[in-house]
Amino acid sequence: MSHNKNSATLLISCPDKKGLVAAIANFLMTYNANIMHADQHQDVSENLFLMRIEWSLDGFTLPMESFAAAFQPIADKHGMTWRVSLSSRKPRMAIFVSKYEHCLVDLLHRWRIGELNCDIPLIISNHEDCRRMAEFNGIPYHVVPVTQTNKEEAEAEQWRLLEEAGVDVIVLARYMQVLSQRFVERFPNRVINIHHSFLPAFDGAKPYHRAFARGVKLIGATSHYVTEVLDDGPIIEQEVTRISHRDDVEDLVQKGRDLEKVVLSRAVRWHLDDRVLSYSNKTVVFD
Amino acid sequence: MSHNKNSATLLISCPDKKGLVAAIANFLMTYNANIMHADQHQDVSENLFLMRIEWSLDGFTLPMESFAAAFQPIADKHGMTWRVSLSSRKPRMAIFVSKYEHCLVDLLHRWRIGELNCDIPLIISNHEDCRRMAEFNGIPYHVVPVTQTNKEEAEAEQWRLLEEAGVDVIVLARYMQVLSQRFVERFPNRVINIHHSFLPAFDGAKPYHRAFARGVKLIGATSHYVTEVLDDGPIIEQEVTRISHRDDVEDLVQKGRDLEKVVLSRAVRWHLDDRVLSYSNKTVVFD
Amino acid sequence: MSHNKNSATLLISCPDKKGLVAAIANFLMTYNANIMHADQHQDVSENLFLMRIEWSLDGFTLPMESFAAAFQPIADKHGMTWRVSLSSRKPRMAIFVSKYEHCLVDLLHRWRIGELNCDIPLIISNHEDCRRMAEFNGIPYHVVPVTQTNKEEAEAEQWRLLEEAGVDVIVLARYMQVLSQRFVERFPNRVINIHHSFLPAFDGAKPYHRAFARGVKLIGATSHYVTEVLDDGPIIEQEVTRISHRDDVEDLVQKGRDLEKVVLSRAVRWHLDDRVLSYSNKTVVFD
Amino acid sequence: MSHNKNSATLLISCPDKKGLVAAIANFLMTYNANIMHADQHQDVSENLFLMRIEWSLDGFTLPMESFAAAFQPIADKHGMTWRVSLSSRKPRMAIFVSKYEHCLVDLLHRWRIGELNCDIPLIISNHEDCRRMAEFNGIPYHVVPVTQTNKEEAEAEQWRLLEEAGVDVIVLARYMQVLSQRFVERFPNRVINIHHSFLPAFDGAKPYHRAFARGVKLIGATSHYVTEVLDDGPIIEQEVTRISHRDDVEDLVQKGRDLEKVVLSRAVRWHLDDRVLSYSNKTVVFD
Repeated sequence: MSHNKNSATLLISCPDKKGLVAAIANFLMTYNANIMHADQHQDVSENLFLMRIEWSLDGFTLPMESFAAAFQPIADKHGMTWRVSLSSRKPRMAIFVSKYEHCLVDLLHRWRIGELNCDIPLIISNHEDCRRMAEFNGIPYHVVPVTQTNKEEAEAEQWRLLEEAGVDVIVLARYMQVLSQRFVERFPNRVINIHHSFLPAFDGAKPYHRAFARGVKLIGATSHYVTEVLDDGPIIEQEVTRISHRDDVEDLVQKGRDLEKVVLSRAVRWHLDDRVLSYSNKTVVFD
Repeated sequence: MSHNKNSATLLISCPDKKGLVAAIANFLMTYNANIMHADQHQDVSENLFLMRIEWSLDGFTLPMESFAAAFQPIADKHGMTWRVSLSSRKPRMAIFVSKYEHCLVDLLHRWRIGELNCDIPLIISNHEDCRRMAEFNGIPYHVVPVTQTNKEEAEAEQWRLLEEAGVDVIVLARYMQVLSQRFVERFPNRVINIHHSFLPAFDGAKPYHRAFARGVKLIGATSHYVTEVLDDGPIIEQEVTRISHRDDVEDLVQKGRDLEKVVLSRAVRWHLDDRVLSYSNKTVVFD
Repeated sequence: MSHNKNSATLLISCPDKKGLVAAIANFLMTYNANIMHADQHQDVSENLFLMRIEWSLDGFTLPMESFAAAFQPIADKHGMTWRVSLSSRKPRMAIFVSKYEHCLVDLLHRWRIGELNCDIPLIISNHEDCRRMAEFNGIPYHVVPVTQTNKEEAEAEQWRLLEEAGVDVIVLARYMQVLSQRFVERFPNRVINIHHSFLPAFDGAKPYHRAFARGVKLIGATSHYVTEVLDDGPIIEQEVTRISHRDDVEDLVQKGRDLEKVVLSRAVRWHLDDRVLSYSNKTVVFD
Repeated sequence: MSHNKNSATLLISCPDKKGLVAAIANFLMTYNANIMHADQHQDVSENLFLMRIEWSLDGFTLPMESFAAAFQPIADKHGMTWRVSLSSRKPRMAIFVSKYEHCLVDLLHRWRIGELNCDIPLIISNHEDCRRMAEFNGIPYHVVPVTQTNKEEAEAEQWRLLEEAGVDVIVLARYMQVLSQRFVERFPNRVINIHHSFLPAFDGAKPYHRAFARGVKLIGATSHYVTEVLDDGPIIEQEVTRISHRDDVEDLVQKGRDLEKVVLSRAVRWHLDDRVLSYSNKTVVFD
């Protein structure tokens, strides 16, 4: 599953029917593709076919700038929604953060040592707290304050920065603000959030306090695509850890930080590696 | 943590203050107790002290029939709620079951090989399905049909059977009926249920179907004491397992069975071993 | 992943090269196959291609009795090792057991409720202990005593019983005897064992005692195909559970039983569902 | 389990006998101690009693500078080995690192946000690589090169630095050098290592490569006190994560990093919080 230096990845979804695998494999074989990974899934109840296929571009005889034109007839025939990406073109990822820096620190370290295959052109925050960490990593840090009354202007400024930077994906690394519906709808399935509970349990505010009050024996974290409904988007990854009566709320917060870091970073990596397909408010994560 | 053949276990809860450990330890030392396990917990926010202490009766100079009289003055002084149990006296456990037999089979096997330190004088069901399994284990099996209209009579009959058998604890091993408030209140913290979700997520009906629809990445099971509010009682144990987009509802049901068996059997064993103290709709599980 | 009533599954391994997926997909498409699952893996370091493909036989125009003749030319061209199985033909599984019955009880219950897609024509043991359990499930139970000196005769008798029953796979459900090299070699990758440690740690005798002595914080269980080297065959599945200083050897044994049951049953189910391919003393488990 | 600002913690081990809990509790009660946590363990096979007891110093009438003199008679009477520590006095921790910085980054971040209750007066490395990270955190960074031939001189220099800094505990955060027996013996149970396997499996070099070659289904990490035998000291903590045939060695290394960070940081935190007692090459970790 390591990053290939020169490969293409095709993600497809379409109504399920016979011959889809053969049609796609034949198309690629025509141009001498060396298929490295192929994984598919059928959702029987929705009659949906989903596929991820990755091939080496070494020896591939179709220039990638001609790929769309060559593949579109097949896509049209089968009603496919598709996208293709090249490992040589790194996605551009923005990180939003507030005051808690643990997810940011974790993402930046993974990025530095090559776990995350992306560029990070900017970090946006409503606070100054994480500036030093951003600068240590050589990443521009923009503070856009958010108040009770300036949300619209703040988001306009954020959009300006994101567009200027040509961003492909936004990661909310414990960014404590709720984005407007308008913001989210402009970037469907490209805003990744980490929520500090095992959703759908304890959605909304103060999940650790509520987990403590309820007396659960495990706490969790959930990474999901952001939709217009709070904490309700397609789940990409979840994880839990055991707690006991000896753990007070502060202990939950501490143990939860480890969950949040691991869960968010997995979701981000899978997204960057084009492993995630979303449908019916769920995800398929190809491995 | 193995069962001692001849020990006593004291469970205490009281307002927290200085000197409680010393008071209890001194009392036991007076009678030459050999303390085998002692564990305590303070809930700081509720100013509550909780303790479990187990000692060998070999050489203990206070006859256990005099224990209550000897200990009550200390309990009174500190406002203790307490109970003591003897390893030589096995609790009497009733199992309620409907049609799904996996939890029943699991409990009975654990009981046969000595994992569960109890007697099982009867199994009650609203269906005939599990009779053969009960008989294989030599346990009387009573069918008490439950309909839309006869609930009151059915529960009266169940109570009659339970009282006749002198039952200390009831385990609902995927018993698909909701017990009445009146039933539950007669047996507080002594009816153990298994719910096939990670509570508080997916309480109520069809949790696996709802977990599938929501697209969660882990499913869970929860064992709890039954209270008058459905699926809301003090949680004793929880566990989760990973699922993926490849799992349909039937797969969730199958994976869930393994969770249900393990979680319920742990909760039952801990209850039988006097490890569970309940307060504020939570549990302390002493290990 | 549920069992399809009328499907075929093809397992393939061969040297990796371009066009394999297309070749196989095209072959199946020729006969109007409806592919339900397809999963492949490349072991880059060994230049090996492995694939599992399952398709519905509804509408498949190639009679399965002609499959081998039709597919062999493709197999020859690419140097494929392959086997095909039909969901309509249940594998025949023998269980070997000694005195510990927990794995046997678990397997039989899963079989009764349909988790294991097989017939169980016989159980072989060197002791009488589990006879009643076998009879409860209506399965012939054969006692073949094994002593220091009669191993060869005992295995001959076991073989006679196995051949008479037409067995496809043998499960050692905590069978405490070591099978001879000769026995194992007659049935490669078709004898599944459960070892009560996280291999390669604590291979051989008394793993729980040695885990206790070493002071590990987790214990494990491993299911693997049996080879002529003790506890060294290809690993199919492993799992661990947490222990603490409070657990003595007996507690490890108890916690370990739950691991053994779950790990063995998964390995058996995957084997029965033709999900396991073995090479270089490893396994690929297609999911 | 949060850090108390003004508490004392007593760790005791001695031959088990009756009355130990009462003796200790009474001693503390004499001076009006408010016991916050008390946990004990008996190792029956070794007839050993081990205890951790933490009390608030608010209202404690024995000045801590007189504690040793006051407690020693009790310790003598029962043959106790004991040590006491004050939450107000932070342990001084040195970190050794080579080139891999993930464990270092993780420890330093936890330290910055208050998860690790210690001072870090210095970091020692045989390479320059991590200097910038050390300086970002304001911690002196000393490079002591280690070659085939200069080990003795290098360790002498390391000792000089450690003594100058008054260090209480050393953490080997993927420090790739083996310390000499002499070094280790000067600091028993105070050098904490992280080994990147589930010990005792794959001790020694290149554990991820060997795990890959063996085809295990889970990989692990182990934190332990360093003894004169490589990878053989008392285990403090272990954890595992699932891998599959899709993971190559690089994937194992990546997944392993997350294990190493979590396992090492837990072990360090427990050590710093005086939760770990070591005996017979095992540990008790009081929770």
